[in-house]
Amino acid sequence: MLIGKVSGSLWATRKNEHLNGLKFLLVDIEDETNEETIKTIVAADTEGAGFGDLVLVTTGGSARIALESPGTPVDAAIVGIIDSVERNNQ
Amino acid sequence: MLIGKVSGSLWATRKNEHLNGLKFLLVDIEDETNEETIKTIVAADTEGAGFGDLVLVTTGGSARIALESPGTPVDAAIVGIIDSVERNNQ
Amino acid sequence: MLIGKVSGSLWATRKNEHLNGLKFLLVDIEDETNEETIKTIVAADTEGAGFGDLVLVTTGGSARIALESPGTPVDAAIVGIIDSVERNNQ
Amino acid sequence: MLIGKVSGSLWATRKNEHLNGLKFLLVDIEDETNEETIKTIVAADTEGAGFGDLVLVTTGGSARIALESPGTPVDAAIVGIIDSVERNNQ
Amino acid sequence: MLIGKVSGSLWATRKNEHLNGLKFLLVDIEDETNEETIKTIVAADTEGAGFGDLVLVTTGGSARIALESPGTPVDAAIVGIIDSVERNNQ
Repeated sequence: MLIGKVSGSLWATRKNEHLNGLKFLLVDIEDETNEETIKTIVAADTEGAGFGDLVLVTTGGSARIALESPGTPVDAAIVGIIDSVERNNQ
Repeated sequence: MLIGKVSGSLWATRKNEHLNGLKFLLVDIEDETNEETIKTIVAADTEGAGFGDLVLVTTGGSARIALESPGTPVDAAIVGIIDSVERNNQ
Repeated sequence: MLIGKVSGSLWATRKNEHLNGLKFLLVDIEDETNEETIKTIVAADTEGAGFGDLVLVTTGGSARIALESPGTPVDAAIVGIIDSVERNNQ
Repeated sequence: MLIGKVSGSLWATRKNEHLNGLKFLLVDIEDETNEETIKTIVAADTEGAGFGDLVLVTTGGSARIALESPGTPVDAAIVGIIDSVERNNQ
Repeated sequence: MLIGKVSGSLWATRKNEHLNGLKFLLVDIEDETNEETIKTIVAADTEGAGFGDLVLVTTGGSARIALESPGTPVDAAIVGIIDSVERNNQ
């Protein structure tokens, strides 16, 4: 899984019908220093994440498992809102 | 999923028979500043996207789910035409 | 899918028995300017591609679907010989 | 699989219910010189790894196989604690 | 698939029980000039590869197919020992 920060949302009127009703958020995946965004992905959200939240994102087939909807064509989903990260650099 | 901009199309006479009738578009995946293309991928399109459209692309097994065709050998599909992206950099 | 140029081939006497009879080609995946090779991958070819051909490559589970052989351990396959690419940079 | 070093942990109260009870660790994936972190991922741990441990991480569907839980939306799991790595650069 | 050079091995006493008896090798994936290592991955080996061998590596679900063991949590496997690579840069 990846740690990212919710940085936005998107609106798409014309889309695959199986995506109706889902909320899609932009998530910035940051490097290990949390100073630079490596890439921005779009993840389906079922956890109620908001702007600026640090979230846990799962990718690939596990995103559809998270939605409990194998027929939904998504490849990334927010599966947790992160309260705290403890790093212990040795 | 990834946000990209449709930048072209391709023509292939000789191809896997299961790809017949599908439209394939080039999609430039841009970095978070939308200023630089990170990579260009080819995605099957069922949403009617056109040149310059900002699109939502899903990858891997979810592309075949989007086409509702598990026997079609694609790994990327356009699943939405994006109307607007709201970014809120904190 | 990815666009690449066939740049070579490989020979392996000792290999997984399910790979016998398959042709494996080296494919250079180029950046969006088609000037620099980002990476070289090895793809199974069922379309009869030759050196220098521009090809469409599918990856992951869709490669096995392209070969119509779920028991063949490949993760990339050439699914089309590209006649032309039209780019329209806006 | 990837070799990484356990560098932290995370806490998430609000999360997908199938993730309850799992331990999630931050794992720094290092380059071949073991001097620079390429990326940090979050992996489910069932092997009892601790801070600073060198671990073997599997990704994608194999993470769910490692947990023996196809309904758990994870895409990375620690499958071994590495005792030693022998490199033989030729 | 990827071409890589076997550069080492690893030892892990504590590991997922389904990995018992498998040999895991470090494989350096090189760039197209074969001069620089892009990344090092760990692959299960069933072909009897040795240090310095150039090998063909398959990733994702195809690794488990190569092992003919869907319950083994691996995401990379050596599926061939490469005798020769012919490159024809045009």
